[in-house]
Amino acid sequence: MEKYLHRVMYYETDKMGLTHHSNYIRFMEEARVDLLEKLGWPYEKLEELGLFSPVIGLSCCYLSPTTFSDVIEISAEVLEYKGARLKVGYKMSKRDGTPVFEGVSEHCFVGKNGRPIRLSKVCPEFDEAMKSAVENGGK
Amino acid sequence: MEKYLHRVMYYETDKMGLTHHSNYIRFMEEARVDLLEKLGWPYEKLEELGLFSPVIGLSCCYLSPTTFSDVIEISAEVLEYKGARLKVGYKMSKRDGTPVFEGVSEHCFVGKNGRPIRLSKVCPEFDEAMKSAVENGGK
Amino acid sequence: MEKYLHRVMYYETDKMGLTHHSNYIRFMEEARVDLLEKLGWPYEKLEELGLFSPVIGLSCCYLSPTTFSDVIEISAEVLEYKGARLKVGYKMSKRDGTPVFEGVSEHCFVGKNGRPIRLSKVCPEFDEAMKSAVENGGK
Amino acid sequence: MEKYLHRVMYYETDKMGLTHHSNYIRFMEEARVDLLEKLGWPYEKLEELGLFSPVIGLSCCYLSPTTFSDVIEISAEVLEYKGARLKVGYKMSKRDGTPVFEGVSEHCFVGKNGRPIRLSKVCPEFDEAMKSAVENGGK
Repeated sequence: MEKYLHRVMYYETDKMGLTHHSNYIRFMEEARVDLLEKLGWPYEKLEELGLFSPVIGLSCCYLSPTTFSDVIEISAEVLEYKGARLKVGYKMSKRDGTPVFEGVSEHCFVGKNGRPIRLSKVCPEFDEAMKSAVENGGK
Repeated sequence: MEKYLHRVMYYETDKMGLTHHSNYIRFMEEARVDLLEKLGWPYEKLEELGLFSPVIGLSCCYLSPTTFSDVIEISAEVLEYKGARLKVGYKMSKRDGTPVFEGVSEHCFVGKNGRPIRLSKVCPEFDEAMKSAVENGGK
Repeated sequence: MEKYLHRVMYYETDKMGLTHHSNYIRFMEEARVDLLEKLGWPYEKLEELGLFSPVIGLSCCYLSPTTFSDVIEISAEVLEYKGARLKVGYKMSKRDGTPVFEGVSEHCFVGKNGRPIRLSKVCPEFDEAMKSAVENGGK
Repeated sequence: MEKYLHRVMYYETDKMGLTHHSNYIRFMEEARVDLLEKLGWPYEKLEELGLFSPVIGLSCCYLSPTTFSDVIEISAEVLEYKGARLKVGYKMSKRDGTPVFEGVSEHCFVGKNGRPIRLSKVCPEFDEAMKSAVENGGK
């Protein structure tokens, strides 16, 4: 699958002269939104269906710094999906291949009222799409 | 009226080593929220009443830079109010009195559907509060 | 000149369901960086030459809201340049042509020590580039 | 040790109506800066000494959402310190005691050139302070 590209903006740097660490969490979101779109399920469509997918956990390693105007290549893939929980993995590198970041986000699914929902009941097509995304390693 | 204090966070600086200019727009919002609260109309209460007050215009001058851990003292006051439009003015300075920023934000009032509303009809008490805030210079 | 595109991210929205107004100030920066690059003077090159261009003033109007996944088309142009001061203008619209934002930013030029510099002395080529950018209306 | 308080700002919410998950990473930084200050080592002092402490890893769980105007109480403590690596733990809760977030950040220490440094050599007093912070559980 084609990688998602994020070019680091000036407002994303900090006084150390580097991309502030909190922004990579936002780049993860950008790549996740892009992944869902490529899988045929743009996030705005899910929200229209009354499906929300909040982050319930994160873990990540910062491997090498980036700074203003660097282009970060991000690959994202569905690592695990068990009907109620979704795990997405991210690998970020510079254009020259230097790895800069690895992370995993974990998500649940809730309805408009904020209560957990069973995807297989509420939206079986999306349930199927996530299952096959895991089998294909998100590729 | 007591000034609102904002201490500059590391994530609010940029690679020039200074507070990024976009953050002052956020500090304006912080001071505006604080002002409305001091006037007896916390923004969350307005939203519960179905009243929203989007920004429709901004203008500002950056007078002197600030950086991480600086405490910015912000005074905010209602400059103008004409039933449908609200203008709020802001003056920011360092603890030693150095002026760092001056700005004005302009707001309209809309309901949940995003349509303009007449405050004097929908919420006459808030209308009155804004009128007297202008008379008192927000003080 | 080709327009700069910004797709609104989920983290750029707020609880009103719309793009938070402070983010447009960041989109202005993105478009300015892009403009300088198209004019042959990428901002990272200017910084390597010891040239910094802080924002000293802003003014803007919010014309129509945007939200998550909207693509904003941004045109930026050099409006004024007088050796020590630079004014850049921005017009943003949705893909369907709806105007969403207009703004102007004003900049000075300083060296690494933060003191004002005369571009015509320190970097005559950039001085020339800005002069001709005004003549061409940033095109 | 007194808890650090962060009041959620409007610009920290997203279109789900809740505090965007990336902001908690910033609240962790705020609480860490506060912790170091309380331990007698404000971060700006460390930077003056040429000591930087970038984040090299994060992990966290989101336990319950927060939104605009909620006050988050944050306790931070030094969990581990081994001369080259520092682990800080964070617990966040609402004023009513509801747990909202738990996280850990891992840090290394580098000099101005970005190279790792041995704190015991470069700044033995800070090295001692971190050691006793672990013994006291950051309290």
